[in-house]
Amino acid sequence: MTYLNHPPIDPRLDLVLERIVDVPPELVWAAWTTPVHLKKWFTPAPWVTVDCEIDLRPGGIFRTVMRGPEGQEHHVAGCYLEVVKNERLVWTDALAPGYRPSEKPFFTAIIKFEPHGTGTKYTAIAIHKDEETRKNHEQMGFHDGWGKALDQLVAFARTL
Amino acid sequence: MTYLNHPPIDPRLDLVLERIVDVPPELVWAAWTTPVHLKKWFTPAPWVTVDCEIDLRPGGIFRTVMRGPEGQEHHVAGCYLEVVKNERLVWTDALAPGYRPSEKPFFTAIIKFEPHGTGTKYTAIAIHKDEETRKNHEQMGFHDGWGKALDQLVAFARTL
Repeated sequence: MTYLNHPPIDPRLDLVLERIVDVPPELVWAAWTTPVHLKKWFTPAPWVTVDCEIDLRPGGIFRTVMRGPEGQEHHVAGCYLEVVKNERLVWTDALAPGYRPSEKPFFTAIIKFEPHGTGTKYTAIAIHKDEETRKNHEQMGFHDGWGKALDQLVAFARTL
Repeated sequence: MTYLNHPPIDPRLDLVLERIVDVPPELVWAAWTTPVHLKKWFTPAPWVTVDCEIDLRPGGIFRTVMRGPEGQEHHVAGCYLEVVKNERLVWTDALAPGYRPSEKPFFTAIIKFEPHGTGTKYTAIAIHKDEETRKNHEQMGFHDGWGKALDQLVAFARTL
């Protein structure tokens, strides 16, 4: 299967977090694709991920339930688009499992895991339909939130 | 790559056209995936397909321009989700090329091509987000339109 070479990134529409981390791609991949692992790091504290469902194939479900400090819950269900072990994971909330168009499309995520010495060059790209949605995501704290979650991922992956 | 086994079909949300045709899967596939071929059959007359762009890989563009008898034009651009040669083609207009969430999601299409004697068991499934969208698509003439287009495809494929 030949995939599109993502990006080109469009800075008006896309948000990017790129960082070198000192755990290898295999462990970052495991943290992203195993529900019991993902619940340990996915949500920046004090939020927690209290449920996670993963069917790791194109069209398969990626569902999470995040709970805030006041008990408020945020449910998200989307599906995977590309699953390339230890290399790349693409999922979207614009499609529900089985590729059904969803009620509230927000973004598509492309996560790339590239070997870098004994660690990983980690790139997370959030792709939006327009500039307003990108700005909303940015103001919700994309960079800080995804950065903190990655810190948690790395701390957790070191225990694997 | 392991794919989800589509359907289950949900009759409240999905529309299905299933028919045995007397041309082999390879030719039906060629008619669906080659722009110069697709323009010959894709739109029920008197509408015509005047432009078509295909980048046949997950995330790649599937774009058509259909023109009606009064010169009105209907532009659609989506992307492919699954490309399994001679077997299955999945595309959606809920995502633009590169998986960007689109402005006006309408449906995802799963087209299956199964060998049947010397011909093909052809199944086209249109998947919608809710019952209202399914009903709209039905009232736009899904069964008649996709049926006529398939007649045109078969007549054209016999000339290949």
